[in-house]
Amino acid sequence: MTETDLVLAANLEFYRAFGAGDYPAMNALWARNAQILCIHPGWPPLSGREAVMRSWRNILTNPQPTRVACHDDQAFVYGEFAMVICEEELSSGSLVATNYFVKEGGRWRMLHHQASPLVARREQARPQRRRNERH
Amino acid sequence: MTETDLVLAANLEFYRAFGAGDYPAMNALWARNAQILCIHPGWPPLSGREAVMRSWRNILTNPQPTRVACHDDQAFVYGEFAMVICEEELSSGSLVATNYFVKEGGRWRMLHHQASPLVARREQARPQRRRNERH
Repeated sequence: MTETDLVLAANLEFYRAFGAGDYPAMNALWARNAQILCIHPGWPPLSGREAVMRSWRNILTNPQPTRVACHDDQAFVYGEFAMVICEEELSSGSLVATNYFVKEGGRWRMLHHQASPLVARREQARPQRRRNERH
Repeated sequence: MTETDLVLAANLEFYRAFGAGDYPAMNALWARNAQILCIHPGWPPLSGREAVMRSWRNILTNPQPTRVACHDDQAFVYGEFAMVICEEELSSGSLVATNYFVKEGGRWRMLHHQASPLVARREQARPQRRRNERH
């Protein structure tokens, strides 16, 4: 697998854990050494492992699990850092996300996630690729 | 100046160029070698220098310049990469942004910008620091 494939696999694991409400997997996915950040839609930024993981614990342990599908994922690898931009389909609407990864101990781990509402429509046809759809 | 200071200075230069409608400065600020990305509020992602800079040319040459102020800027430096998270005040509302920088030729240049609407209020008091306010 190329580094791009590995980053895209880590990104899909994020959406799998998100959709499945799998907090241990989500916790394992985020970086341990680097300072992590997260901007949930409409929220002010969260920084540091404690605040970021508390937000995910609250989201993932909600009795109503979030239905989330990721598509049009593109990875950009810059040495030990990488970004994935993708679209998210949630029951509440469409979002566009950037997920940042850093290599720690040979594994791509999440450094930052920012999701924001998608309002404008693409000029091109709608998604050719639909990834991680579980629902 | 520390690397953190230099990254924050590059971030302020972004908002100065944005508010002043200074396209040459904006063009000079973005990375030349790395693939650049940009997610304007509500838009699908743009990738590559041509698409990203065309969007900025359109925004900055608008006869009605954008009033923009940046505050609560925090920089996170990871070697040759850095992120700044900050809030943006525009006449249209409050946004939260992540600006990602890469070091090229000894200068911090922009790699990615994502701005998304801020809906939730901070628990703590409103901004202590107000940066780059021109209007």
